[in-house]
Amino acid sequence: MPSLAANAATRVAPALALIAQERRRILEELGQLVAIPSISTRPESAGDVRACAEWLAAHLAAMGMTHTQVIATGGHPIVISEWRDSEPKPALLIYGHYDVQPPEPLEPWLSPPFVATVRENRVYGRGTTDDKGQLFIHLKAMEACLRASASLPVHVRLVLEGEEEIGSPSLAAFLQGKKEWLRSDLAVISDTPFFAAGIPSICYGLRGTVYMEVEVTGPATDLHSGSHGGAVHNPIQALAEMIAQLHDARGRVAIPGFYDGVRPLSQKERNGFRALPWSDRKYAQELGVPRLHGEAGFTTLERLWARPTLECHGIGGGYTEAGSKTIIPARAAAKISMRIVPGQRPERIAQLFAKHVRRIAPSAVRVSVQCLHASAAALTPLESPGMEAAVAAMSAGFGRRPVMQREGGSIPVATHLKSLLGMDTVLLGFGLPDENAHAPNEFLDLGNFFGGMATAIHFYHELANTLHAKGD
Amino acid sequence: MPSLAANAATRVAPALALIAQERRRILEELGQLVAIPSISTRPESAGDVRACAEWLAAHLAAMGMTHTQVIATGGHPIVISEWRDSEPKPALLIYGHYDVQPPEPLEPWLSPPFVATVRENRVYGRGTTDDKGQLFIHLKAMEACLRASASLPVHVRLVLEGEEEIGSPSLAAFLQGKKEWLRSDLAVISDTPFFAAGIPSICYGLRGTVYMEVEVTGPATDLHSGSHGGAVHNPIQALAEMIAQLHDARGRVAIPGFYDGVRPLSQKERNGFRALPWSDRKYAQELGVPRLHGEAGFTTLERLWARPTLECHGIGGGYTEAGSKTIIPARAAAKISMRIVPGQRPERIAQLFAKHVRRIAPSAVRVSVQCLHASAAALTPLESPGMEAAVAAMSAGFGRRPVMQREGGSIPVATHLKSLLGMDTVLLGFGLPDENAHAPNEFLDLGNFFGGMATAIHFYHELANTLHAKGD
Repeated sequence: MPSLAANAATRVAPALALIAQERRRILEELGQLVAIPSISTRPESAGDVRACAEWLAAHLAAMGMTHTQVIATGGHPIVISEWRDSEPKPALLIYGHYDVQPPEPLEPWLSPPFVATVRENRVYGRGTTDDKGQLFIHLKAMEACLRASASLPVHVRLVLEGEEEIGSPSLAAFLQGKKEWLRSDLAVISDTPFFAAGIPSICYGLRGTVYMEVEVTGPATDLHSGSHGGAVHNPIQALAEMIAQLHDARGRVAIPGFYDGVRPLSQKERNGFRALPWSDRKYAQELGVPRLHGEAGFTTLERLWARPTLECHGIGGGYTEAGSKTIIPARAAAKISMRIVPGQRPERIAQLFAKHVRRIAPSAVRVSVQCLHASAAALTPLESPGMEAAVAAMSAGFGRRPVMQREGGSIPVATHLKSLLGMDTVLLGFGLPDENAHAPNEFLDLGNFFGGMATAIHFYHELANTLHAKGD
Repeated sequence: MPSLAANAATRVAPALALIAQERRRILEELGQLVAIPSISTRPESAGDVRACAEWLAAHLAAMGMTHTQVIATGGHPIVISEWRDSEPKPALLIYGHYDVQPPEPLEPWLSPPFVATVRENRVYGRGTTDDKGQLFIHLKAMEACLRASASLPVHVRLVLEGEEEIGSPSLAAFLQGKKEWLRSDLAVISDTPFFAAGIPSICYGLRGTVYMEVEVTGPATDLHSGSHGGAVHNPIQALAEMIAQLHDARGRVAIPGFYDGVRPLSQKERNGFRALPWSDRKYAQELGVPRLHGEAGFTTLERLWARPTLECHGIGGGYTEAGSKTIIPARAAAKISMRIVPGQRPERIAQLFAKHVRRIAPSAVRVSVQCLHASAAALTPLESPGMEAAVAAMSAGFGRRPVMQREGGSIPVATHLKSLLGMDTVLLGFGLPDENAHAPNEFLDLGNFFGGMATAIHFYHELANTLHAKGD
């Protein structure tokens, strides 16, 4: 590997130099992007979201990207762009999102949310880490390569979405419609944080989600609990008793067959997780809980990243305003999802859940179960060419070999790319865990911002080495 | 008793005759009362509520009642009035409420809600049974006595409330402030239904209420259930597990000490309940439940009227709108009350509940328990003079000896009168169970309306016999 690294260093040096020389310009441009309040959840901001898409399209065109388009959807537009030449090169799909969360509450912001402001080697502003700053890392990395050598080492397709913060309602249809154009050797997304400051990380596994809704119906209408209390089963009580039967005393999910096929963690992975700097006590403090809780026999990181779980997201029934009202409610309902891991099939898990709930349903109420959505877990093989390129690039960009981590959440676009196009995704994120994404005083560490550009430049070049060209 | 009954019949005959002759006028006057939309829950109806109070005050004054006042409260006014003479007579407190529920939904009404309309020997309109029609029974019974003999056989204090449908927020302070004026030998309330059509009933027992709120707090803020699911206890799950531990497998309340002191039902009472016409199947059908449910070892009426119960009235936590959101909520809460019976002290029950909940609270969350209000059960002794007068009056008014029933609910004014003034209350109700109180097409059976007046006239006279005069 040393010779390869040296070789790569020579090839990337001009582009890296350009970045180093133009930091001020790059930050000014990021400021222009941050200044557009592309708040996707607010109908009155639709014009700003569109303006942001158009600013990006113009910027991409000026960089030398081709086929740049602002594509209308049922919601906010998607910006696509590409770069290719006639040489056989591997194809890389880069995904990012240019929409942001609302800035509220405004009072805690130390500088205006839509004015990118540098303080203490950080750039503050809404979207700096999530995800304008991180997508801009790729734009500037590609720009530097194009300026340095009028070429990129890979063919690139770029997809910049404007609805990520509202659940990507238009994305699946877009991906479905653009399948042929999108198909690449690998996808990369820069929208995740380092494991901790100073510890670059690559996420290689995501859990899937199976989202269920359970409704319990009792009497035809709310009943007076004085007149009728003692005669009928209470839907809230029935639902509570059912929820209580979804876990056993050891914190395991008590649905028969739930763990069938769950791929065990390898000793190598467990060792890798254990080598990470981690304190249960500190984590509990940060979350504000008296103590952590979960499946017995696994560490916290194992439970979060590699074990399936079941959580209640919402419950409602009867009277919940201030004061007292004495009813037996006609119904109660809960939203419950399971995070699933490799080896669990989402459809099967949904079936097992429904079957278990129907079996434990008390006969004095009616119970209905519905699956709202289900997606599989995703693991990008550690020994794959894309992952090897990412490790080498991150090592070169930050001078430290990244830790390999998994993530408990699901990233719908990664799931879609796998299920629709069979593509693996590398999550090459440059955020930090405490950068206030979705909160006031969001920021991006400038070391990670520029280190991210260096990493991206290395990554494109490494990919050209590790991935076999498809000659598309 | 036969000689007494014959004697009473002679004394009441002139008043009964007046009622029989003036049915049309009485119905017209009820129509005027029903026409005033005294909807207490609607701020914009405050003027109508006051107009209704003033209509009643004018009516009472015209009837020959004295000291009639419309008393301002923090909310809607209370109308008071009295009749007394210089003779030593027992004192009777009559309570009623002149406020009504909103008429909505309007579409199902076959005649306008605020136009009293006679169809098939029923008078339809909002408030006809709850409670304008029933309080009017007493007004017209007193009026007939006063016209027939320029006198009443008892001293009367009348309290007509305008906030019963919104939980009587001003009542306790009013009762406290008027203690001396209110103190009487007995209270009567006509605001309950017969056991069934054609089966006159007297309610001699009410359950008390102990109303609690339980809040479970987990993480400081809602957490992403992908990133954190598996590490912390979920407040909804913790609350559900606690609710599931409030009953045992036989449907008994599982709080240690809860049943201590519960006065057992006498065999006589059980036999009385069993003699009532009752069908579990029909009741389940009416309520729309697959089957009834409750404490093993007791009949439905025993469970409803004489056994303590625990019900959940509301539960809330996390995301309950349409669609899916993946959070571990920061908190979940439930409103839970217990109906208690004679022998259970409300404060003690609140303590036992709180102690049990704290004991079963999982250590990975924080749990708080609060008592919102607590009131004792009330039993009016079956062998008391007031009850004997009520039985005789009902027998005379409807030609059938009433059944003695209890009621699962609580009537706060009855509880207040007992706890503040030590007074027993007789619940001498003339409604029917299916008269659509609180619903469209509310009505009052005219047989019960005029039979109620006859009963009330008999009742006042019987009381003069059975109760020892206090000479106030």
